[in-house]
Amino acid sequence: MKQLEDKIREEGRALSDQVLKVDAFLNHQVDPVLMQAIGKEFAERFKDAQIDRIVTLESSGIAPAMMTALEMDIPFVFARKRKSLTLQDDLVEADVYSFTKQETNRISLSRRFVLPGERVLVIDDFLANGEAALGLTQLVEAAGAEVSGVGIVIEKSFQLGRDKLIERGYRVESLARVAKLEKDHISFVEVVR
Amino acid sequence: MKQLEDKIREEGRALSDQVLKVDAFLNHQVDPVLMQAIGKEFAERFKDAQIDRIVTLESSGIAPAMMTALEMDIPFVFARKRKSLTLQDDLVEADVYSFTKQETNRISLSRRFVLPGERVLVIDDFLANGEAALGLTQLVEAAGAEVSGVGIVIEKSFQLGRDKLIERGYRVESLARVAKLEKDHISFVEVVR
Repeated sequence: MKQLEDKIREEGRALSDQVLKVDAFLNHQVDPVLMQAIGKEFAERFKDAQIDRIVTLESSGIAPAMMTALEMDIPFVFARKRKSLTLQDDLVEADVYSFTKQETNRISLSRRFVLPGERVLVIDDFLANGEAALGLTQLVEAAGAEVSGVGIVIEKSFQLGRDKLIERGYRVESLARVAKLEKDHISFVEVVR
Repeated sequence: MKQLEDKIREEGRALSDQVLKVDAFLNHQVDPVLMQAIGKEFAERFKDAQIDRIVTLESSGIAPAMMTALEMDIPFVFARKRKSLTLQDDLVEADVYSFTKQETNRISLSRRFVLPGERVLVIDDFLANGEAALGLTQLVEAAGAEVSGVGIVIEKSFQLGRDKLIERGYRVESLARVAKLEKDHISFVEVVR
């Protein structure tokens, strides 16, 4: 998605050869017009997948999931990283290690909002080692639903997440695929569509 | 906002006379069409306030802030409850006690995304005792910007948050004002607009 790649080039910052900071438009400050374009792009790519529901992870998945759900006219659910006192009944859970935050989060989802047999699109902001996306697929499947696709805003293609997801048979659509992070240059995987 | 009040009556659950659960459409599962209507309503109410930017708090503020920002054609920023390893520079911080989660969170915002002199609209999903909203106003003011309004999706009008905000001189617009929570009945403050 060229608009997203341009934004990453202009406003993203490679903090190292591993870490890409996109807090200017995705995970701290958010650019709503870009999110709308991202929602339209996911809706287009998964238009034949008969998606019933979107599942994402708080917090940075919420804005892209929101716009995709609006475009597809379906509800979305965001998995929680911590339990709320008012959010306890009938949960499915999975453990997710975050390399960025160096901690394990138990993520959870209420069975009330992901129903057996539903076709679910998993959306997340980043795909690196695949921990978060795999955790989300576990939640969906534990609830008896089917993962019909995984939509990623920014994939770090030099890490293993994509391979792990493909290996498990999931369809993965990443809107920007970062091939290499260098201090003054961010390069993308050439995608022939 | 009648559409929101109807939704709260239909899908909200009063767990006690203090706790209203709205995880069916606002803070776990999210109804995108309702969020869009909420965004339009906030944009309408604050259309003369010359807002430069929206500030909200992860996670449940993100969807309504996203839709309001899209309607107003301005960026939004979500304050973080925990620090990310990639999100550390030049923060403003405030401590917020959550009665729901029974813990204090240090919330933070980068000065890079709230600039001195800007007019900021603070948006949050709930207003109860005002802790979160007041924390957000502290962040905005610590960054040298001005709080030009506080937009709340659901206000529990029987708690003190609204009074605290008004006392400090803030303009508060709440889309639904819950007067009383009873097991089989949720009543709203009659608003003459």
